[in-house]
Amino acid sequence: MKALIVSGHNFEDSELLVPYYRLLEEGVETHIASSQAGPLRGKHGCLVEAQALAQIDGGEYGLLVLPGGKAPAVLSKDEMLLDLVRDFMAAGKTVAAICHGPQILAAAGVLAGRRVTCYCTVAKELQGAGASYLDQSVVVDGNLITARQPRDLPDFMREIIRRCQG
Amino acid sequence: MKALIVSGHNFEDSELLVPYYRLLEEGVETHIASSQAGPLRGKHGCLVEAQALAQIDGGEYGLLVLPGGKAPAVLSKDEMLLDLVRDFMAAGKTVAAICHGPQILAAAGVLAGRRVTCYCTVAKELQGAGASYLDQSVVVDGNLITARQPRDLPDFMREIIRRCQG
Repeated sequence: MKALIVSGHNFEDSELLVPYYRLLEEGVETHIASSQAGPLRGKHGCLVEAQALAQIDGGEYGLLVLPGGKAPAVLSKDEMLLDLVRDFMAAGKTVAAICHGPQILAAAGVLAGRRVTCYCTVAKELQGAGASYLDQSVVVDGNLITARQPRDLPDFMREIIRRCQG
Repeated sequence: MKALIVSGHNFEDSELLVPYYRLLEEGVETHIASSQAGPLRGKHGCLVEAQALAQIDGGEYGLLVLPGGKAPAVLSKDEMLLDLVRDFMAAGKTVAAICHGPQILAAAGVLAGRRVTCYCTVAKELQGAGASYLDQSVVVDGNLITARQPRDLPDFMREIIRRCQG
């Protein structure tokens, strides 16, 4: 199984770095992609190298991870990413989003009737997209795994890794 | 088992954040300490809150993690930390250091005859302290786990978690 992490400038550093290294520890080949290729700078200053989404074949991946920070508000307008999210959801493949990451799911229109969590300030946006918001560290609803914030990373990763092993 | 991560300002962000969240995922109660209490800023800009080493009872912990970055060069002069390292080593408890972290082990005088790795520029300092340097992603020598750099975090964490489970 391969994993794809999609983010952009001003990603929440811990929410990208922790899944990236954790998935590699688990032996999962993991790539980072963004709207354009090149280095991405986290909102605290960490740098990661991203491939361009246009060069990615989503069919190769079984897991999509969407970190938070300020990147998701911008990524929510990337039609290529929204199509990728819809493809993952239609195929029932695992989609994991944390903090502001679920904004991308709302923009993709895949949340109607789904149970989710997210950063507290994003809750109304997700409810407006038809989701039921739960104030829990992590919410698992079928193929969808969502979490609230950096301090929920341990619970978020435990659920993601369970899927990788299943 | 409880884990203690000790670092200071200008820690390598990924080398502190990844062990911290990974150990919590594993259910290991994990604390961060430094020479003084307060927020620590990573060399890229991430912030974490640290307790003062003077408030820490080393006997409560079974695992000591020493991240890299620029912090270890300063921490190598903290006699309270050097005593803590010597206590861990004398008790055969797990000590895990990455990148520049092993500089602290050299300063504590606990490396004579031990096999280690570290960031390449630190190798001579460790050899001068009596260690055998190996250019491998991770080196396990008894209770001592060392790794070279951020990209070795997956191998480093795999060995640390194996000890937590053992």
